[in-house]
Amino acid sequence: MSRNILLYLRYDGTSYHGWQLQNNAVTVQQKVNEAVNGVFNENINVNGCSRTDAGVHANMFCCNFKTDKLIPQNRIPNAVNSYLPPDISVFKATDVSENFHARFSCKSKEYVYRIYNSDIRNPFYENRALLYRDFLDTGMLNEQACQIAGFHDFASFCSSGGSVSDTHRTVYSANVYRNGDIVEFKIHGDGFLYNMVRIAVGTLLDISKGKLPKNSIPDILESCNRDCAGVTAPPHGLYLEHVYY
Amino acid sequence: MSRNILLYLRYDGTSYHGWQLQNNAVTVQQKVNEAVNGVFNENINVNGCSRTDAGVHANMFCCNFKTDKLIPQNRIPNAVNSYLPPDISVFKATDVSENFHARFSCKSKEYVYRIYNSDIRNPFYENRALLYRDFLDTGMLNEQACQIAGFHDFASFCSSGGSVSDTHRTVYSANVYRNGDIVEFKIHGDGFLYNMVRIAVGTLLDISKGKLPKNSIPDILESCNRDCAGVTAPPHGLYLEHVYY
Repeated sequence: MSRNILLYLRYDGTSYHGWQLQNNAVTVQQKVNEAVNGVFNENINVNGCSRTDAGVHANMFCCNFKTDKLIPQNRIPNAVNSYLPPDISVFKATDVSENFHARFSCKSKEYVYRIYNSDIRNPFYENRALLYRDFLDTGMLNEQACQIAGFHDFASFCSSGGSVSDTHRTVYSANVYRNGDIVEFKIHGDGFLYNMVRIAVGTLLDISKGKLPKNSIPDILESCNRDCAGVTAPPHGLYLEHVYY
Repeated sequence: MSRNILLYLRYDGTSYHGWQLQNNAVTVQQKVNEAVNGVFNENINVNGCSRTDAGVHANMFCCNFKTDKLIPQNRIPNAVNSYLPPDISVFKATDVSENFHARFSCKSKEYVYRIYNSDIRNPFYENRALLYRDFLDTGMLNEQACQIAGFHDFASFCSSGGSVSDTHRTVYSANVYRNGDIVEFKIHGDGFLYNMVRIAVGTLLDISKGKLPKNSIPDILESCNRDCAGVTAPPHGLYLEHVYY
C-alpha cells in the first residue's frame, strides 16, 4: 500500500449511532467505509480520529486509510461524496506519510457545545443545539469554565464504560460565550475522556441552576468522583469542531 | 369573537407542500390549524400573511385568527408549540385590533435567499441553502441586484399560475452579500408576485454564468416577458425573513 490518505469529514450525527462500527446499528464509519470502498473498489476500513456518540455532530472529523489506487487527491472528496448520504460530506483529502494514523497522530481536538438559550424552540436548531429555557449568565459561566483548563485528573468528568487507565488530560482552554440566543461552550485539549465534554457542560448548567455551588469545579476535579460532577448534557448540542495534527 | 390574535411562526419548510391548505398534501397551515384548534378547542382556520411554496422556509411568518378564549397571550406560543411538530414553532403571539388581517394588513415583506457557495456540499445546509459550486462575484452581483429595486412592472419576474392582475410592485432594496461560504440575496418590497424572488435569484445566477449579459435587468423588466428573465431558483434556499405591519 503506497498511499496513506487522510479524509476530513463533516456530518450531522442525528441519524447515526455514533462514529464507530456496530453490528446492529447504522454508524458514520459504516457509511464512510461503504463510500470509500465504492470509490476505491477495495475492502477498506477507515481509522477514525475518535469515537463520537449517537447524535453528536462533527464540523471536522478525520479518518485515514491506505490504498494503491492513483485517484488524485483533489478528486477524492466529491468522488466519495457521490457515495455518501446528504448528512455526511468529505470536504478535503490529502496524502499523508505512511505512519500517520488519524487517532494516534492527533495532537489535540476542539469541541463546541451549542445551546439555544430561549424560552421558545427554534425549528432550525432542532437536533443541532440544546434548547435551554432559563437565561444563562455567560459571564459567570465563562469564569467557571476557565477552572476546567489545565493539566488535571479528569476522572470526575468521565462516564463509566471508558476503557482508559490514565484519566489525566490537559485542557488548553475552556470558554463560554454568547452570540444572540446562541450560547457556546468551546473546549480545546490534548485528549478527552468518555463523555468528558458533555459532563463539563452538564456541570456548568447545574452551577447555573444552583444545583452545584459556584467555584466548585476545582473540588469536583479533586474528588476524582463522577458523582460529584453534574449531569451528562444531551448529545445533540455537541460538535467535534477541529482536529489538530 | 372578541379577540383577534396574531401568531409569529418560524418553520423549516422541507417536509411541507408549502403554507396553503391542500386536499392531498401536508401543509404548514394544516399543522398550525390543528395546533391552534388543539389549544383553543374551536374549529379555527388561520389567515396566513402569504403563501410559501413547497420547501420554502420562514424565519418569520404571520397568521391571525379570532377567538373568545381568554388564554393570556404570553402563554399562547408554548401552548400551541406543544401541538406542533418540531419543524414549526410559534415564537410570539399578540392581540391585535378587530380589523387586522395577516395578509391584507401587511405593509411589506423581506425575503432572504441563501446560497452555500462551495465546491463541496455541507450536511448542515442540506435543504437549507442552495449549493452553488462556481465562485460568485458578490460585488458584481450586488450591482445587478440593485437594478431590481424601485417601482416596476415585475411581469418578467412572475411565474404563470399567479392570479394577480396588477404586476406592479415596489422593491425597496435588493442586495447580495457574502459571509464566508454563504452568499445571501436579501430583498425587501411592498409585495411579491408568484416566484418573484426565486426568478430574481435565478436571473442573478444566469448573469453570473454569462447566460444573461451584465446590466440586463432593466431590459428584462422592460420586456414584461417571463422568458427574458433567468431560471426559477430552487425553493430550499428561500426564507421569508420579516413581515412588516
